[in-house]
Amino acid sequence: MSLGSRQKVVVCRDLGPEVMPLLYERKDLEVVAWLEDRKVERSWLLDNVVGAAGLLVVLTDKVDAEVLDKAGPSLRVVSTMSVGYEHVDVAAVAQRNIRLGYTPDVLTDAVADLAVMLALMAGRNGGSTAALVQEGRWPNFSWAPFGFCGPQLSTTPISPTRTVGFLGFGRIAQATLKRLIPFGITHCIYTSSPSSAPSTALEDALLQEHKPTLQSVRRVDLDTLARESDVLFVLAPGGAGTYHIVDEAFLRKMKRMSVLVNPSRGTLVDSEALTRALREGWIWGAGVDVVEGEPHVDREHPLVKEPRCVVVPHIGSATFETRVGMATLAAKNLLAGLAGEQMPAELDVKARS
Amino acid sequence: MSLGSRQKVVVCRDLGPEVMPLLYERKDLEVVAWLEDRKVERSWLLDNVVGAAGLLVVLTDKVDAEVLDKAGPSLRVVSTMSVGYEHVDVAAVAQRNIRLGYTPDVLTDAVADLAVMLALMAGRNGGSTAALVQEGRWPNFSWAPFGFCGPQLSTTPISPTRTVGFLGFGRIAQATLKRLIPFGITHCIYTSSPSSAPSTALEDALLQEHKPTLQSVRRVDLDTLARESDVLFVLAPGGAGTYHIVDEAFLRKMKRMSVLVNPSRGTLVDSEALTRALREGWIWGAGVDVVEGEPHVDREHPLVKEPRCVVVPHIGSATFETRVGMATLAAKNLLAGLAGEQMPAELDVKARS
Repeated sequence: MSLGSRQKVVVCRDLGPEVMPLLYERKDLEVVAWLEDRKVERSWLLDNVVGAAGLLVVLTDKVDAEVLDKAGPSLRVVSTMSVGYEHVDVAAVAQRNIRLGYTPDVLTDAVADLAVMLALMAGRNGGSTAALVQEGRWPNFSWAPFGFCGPQLSTTPISPTRTVGFLGFGRIAQATLKRLIPFGITHCIYTSSPSSAPSTALEDALLQEHKPTLQSVRRVDLDTLARESDVLFVLAPGGAGTYHIVDEAFLRKMKRMSVLVNPSRGTLVDSEALTRALREGWIWGAGVDVVEGEPHVDREHPLVKEPRCVVVPHIGSATFETRVGMATLAAKNLLAGLAGEQMPAELDVKARS
Repeated sequence: MSLGSRQKVVVCRDLGPEVMPLLYERKDLEVVAWLEDRKVERSWLLDNVVGAAGLLVVLTDKVDAEVLDKAGPSLRVVSTMSVGYEHVDVAAVAQRNIRLGYTPDVLTDAVADLAVMLALMAGRNGGSTAALVQEGRWPNFSWAPFGFCGPQLSTTPISPTRTVGFLGFGRIAQATLKRLIPFGITHCIYTSSPSSAPSTALEDALLQEHKPTLQSVRRVDLDTLARESDVLFVLAPGGAGTYHIVDEAFLRKMKRMSVLVNPSRGTLVDSEALTRALREGWIWGAGVDVVEGEPHVDREHPLVKEPRCVVVPHIGSATFETRVGMATLAAKNLLAGLAGEQMPAELDVKARS
């Protein structure tokens, strides 16, 4: 197939029947796509990216200087179907005056849904009780007054307050808080990055929106966050500044009946310390969608072996609605970038590199 | 120990350190308790119930004519720590002018919490993905655009409406609806027992409370309930009138991306039909806290073997807060009944027998 006057775009995954036509229907583009349902082969990418104007990747696909150099000066846009961009060498992209699109925000609701699921599963022994049924052990259990019990997320007359804590208080945290209000959550505490200004306007707005159930919203220090949370959500960005921010010292301060939920980045939590916290009863339970070193987390991983820990394989954004939304946004970013127009979601690569 | 003027009460389980003192501290009672953490032995019960004035049971303990006759005319109160009373021969109790206490309402919030957990797990493949991690298979999975995807509970811009359906619309159903509103639920449909009057007042109150997210609340027939629900909660009483009300015909009408949640009674759902519905893709997934024939549900049970079905072992009310609440209410019912006072929650046995 001759290039003619068409621009080449390389697409590193099949984005499905609802999104691929956005690209295929464009007569001015030559679409070269890796359509297998597995990670693109590096050699395929290096061969095909030569002379491309646009490159659409997912988070398994490393976009480094080698890829950019292979593409050559024709490459004007990289678009990733992800909210994170750790797989992209942002400095190298900036240096070559390439634009970078990503897909923030569209996955907020899907991740918040999963955060609620994990909080409930961690408290209610959802992992260990489902496993017990799978193993055929239900018939061995007769009903007992406190059998299978865990702490209740909802308030009750004998336990009328609940404090949810958020380590990081961005959009996903706020969407999670909103979902928890009808469970009777009375207090919300959070930490933000030290550089961000206090936002009493945000706190006031949340109180106004969720009164009378919610009685307080407070920005606190890490120590208070650990000590006061009944349910603690880790929802901060990764990177050196937050590496193992949930460590042994943090976990030892938590309430014995509390649960920890991590739907953000595995590196934020020290897995060894969390394992000890669960095994020795410093906290009640945990639900994690992410684990440091994933997906190389096998059945011998201490968190996988710990009955009080629910581990799911990074499915935070894994809904059809959200993934179609992400893929659509990635395609639109690519097309807008090629046309020299404003991209729906462009990362400011000069500022980030 | 001599009875003296004290009344004997037989307690068939250890109700824990927060509740047993309510009974032990009463000088006018002789408390005879089965303190082992397993079902009371029938022979122990028959031996010890002789001459008792009060009997406190849980739902594993059959209270039939034999038990009542063994107790003799001294027995004035039976108190069960459960919302259900299928284990009690209500007619035999009524015939002997014995009062019966039970524990409705206190478990509403715990069950509603679990209903939300199961709805999320059923949609988001919470059972099969957690099992995959347990089996050590996470390292085999590379991220894929639609890997592990399921239907999203929350609305999204490309999917802006959600209909939740309730087969039965009592307190637990309404508490579940309340929890789902922040997920963006736009429509609620429900069925009630044919004998109950339509309640436009209730519908109006719910709309008023949950506007503008919730746009409609409608009582419908079973056919409409099956056809229109995105998430369907089975929350009706058991018994002959609802036996296998969710059968093959019902399931075949449901949406292909819908999920079914049963936190109420196993007999309401035909397990064989549900297995086929999941295996053949009539619906997306299911989450069940109850299964017909439980706890004799082993690893060969078709629903346990079905990856799209999350099965937990009847943990609806299994939180410390709720079980302490239920045990406290059961003890108070017993004491009030013995004193000839109004019981906090008494079943009208004459009307039910």
